[in-house]
Amino acid sequence: MDEITDAPQLGDALPLVASDPRWLPIALADLDAVHADHLHCERKAAQSALSLIRSYPERTDLVTAMARLAHDETRHVVQVSQLMTRRGQPASYDFGDDYAAALRDLIRKQEPERLLDRLLVFATIEGRSAERLGLLAGALEDPKSRELYASLATAEVRHRDIFLSLARDASPATWRERAAELAAREAEVLATRAISARIH
Amino acid sequence: MDEITDAPQLGDALPLVASDPRWLPIALADLDAVHADHLHCERKAAQSALSLIRSYPERTDLVTAMARLAHDETRHVVQVSQLMTRRGQPASYDFGDDYAAALRDLIRKQEPERLLDRLLVFATIEGRSAERLGLLAGALEDPKSRELYASLATAEVRHRDIFLSLARDASPATWRERAAELAAREAEVLATRAISARIH
Repeated sequence: MDEITDAPQLGDALPLVASDPRWLPIALADLDAVHADHLHCERKAAQSALSLIRSYPERTDLVTAMARLAHDETRHVVQVSQLMTRRGQPASYDFGDDYAAALRDLIRKQEPERLLDRLLVFATIEGRSAERLGLLAGALEDPKSRELYASLATAEVRHRDIFLSLARDASPATWRERAAELAAREAEVLATRAISARIH
Repeated sequence: MDEITDAPQLGDALPLVASDPRWLPIALADLDAVHADHLHCERKAAQSALSLIRSYPERTDLVTAMARLAHDETRHVVQVSQLMTRRGQPASYDFGDDYAAALRDLIRKQEPERLLDRLLVFATIEGRSAERLGLLAGALEDPKSRELYASLATAEVRHRDIFLSLARDASPATWRERAAELAAREAEVLATRAISARIH
């Protein structure tokens, strides 16, 4: 993953704990559920990026970065949907994501804290997704799925770093401290949730 | 526009009236406002496509088509944002779109009519966008802008046809009649609105 080498200082600012080792076997035991959830994760990632354009249109760098990121995520929706078609698996409804909801609850309401927190929460979700897609990539039996998941994991690391770099630009003095804080809170959120065959 | 030749029967099902001839000079007189509005139109088109994936995940053809369409629209957001940067123009807030809201009010609440109407309303918005982006393409002085707008107009014709073909697949017996009805209602919506320097 070249991105890590390119920007070591960025990823280091968001030290996420390793996933519980029980997650991977649970996920592998119900790949249909994982893919169905994953399709919606990619869709929601695109929607989150577009929602930032709506909120901060005057920030030209953010608008361009988020449009590009949404462009990536929509390609991932196509790719996951094609994978599911190959497996003869229909998609299913999205019944919400209490992991993301718990993180969104940590977003402060007032600007400029609100922008910083939104960027860092999205960075956190991308970072966690990257870790888990990478775990799947290392364990899946089907070579095409493995290759797809490895490429998606790399993309999510890049996305995490885009969010972190926008966070750094938005709040140069406070972003590192808040990133570390949110990484610790994310560990608490994970610890209180049941482990299931979903990306988060 | 090859798409028209490829699928003449589809576009014919949605006979939109020509725009009021006063629109183009008003739009050309305030291109900053047009571009600022256009950026949000492209963003909302991507969001609408993603919202259909959320609502109808079990329709594999729709999921793949909408993910691809959102992928296109997010590229358009990048392109319009780059055009605005070239012009030294910041983006502005989106204060809503009463044209799209008036069309969305025509969407019936119960399935299967709801799906048909959502597809046809999105087809209508794409068709109207295609017409107006084409008018701009024919009148803009800057060659790069002209080229961009011509390519966007072509893309919106293709998108209109994607929505129409999904509508046809969803309700083979009734889609044509409803498309004609919505085209007529759209003409009424346009007639009651002030003409302004916006895409719709």
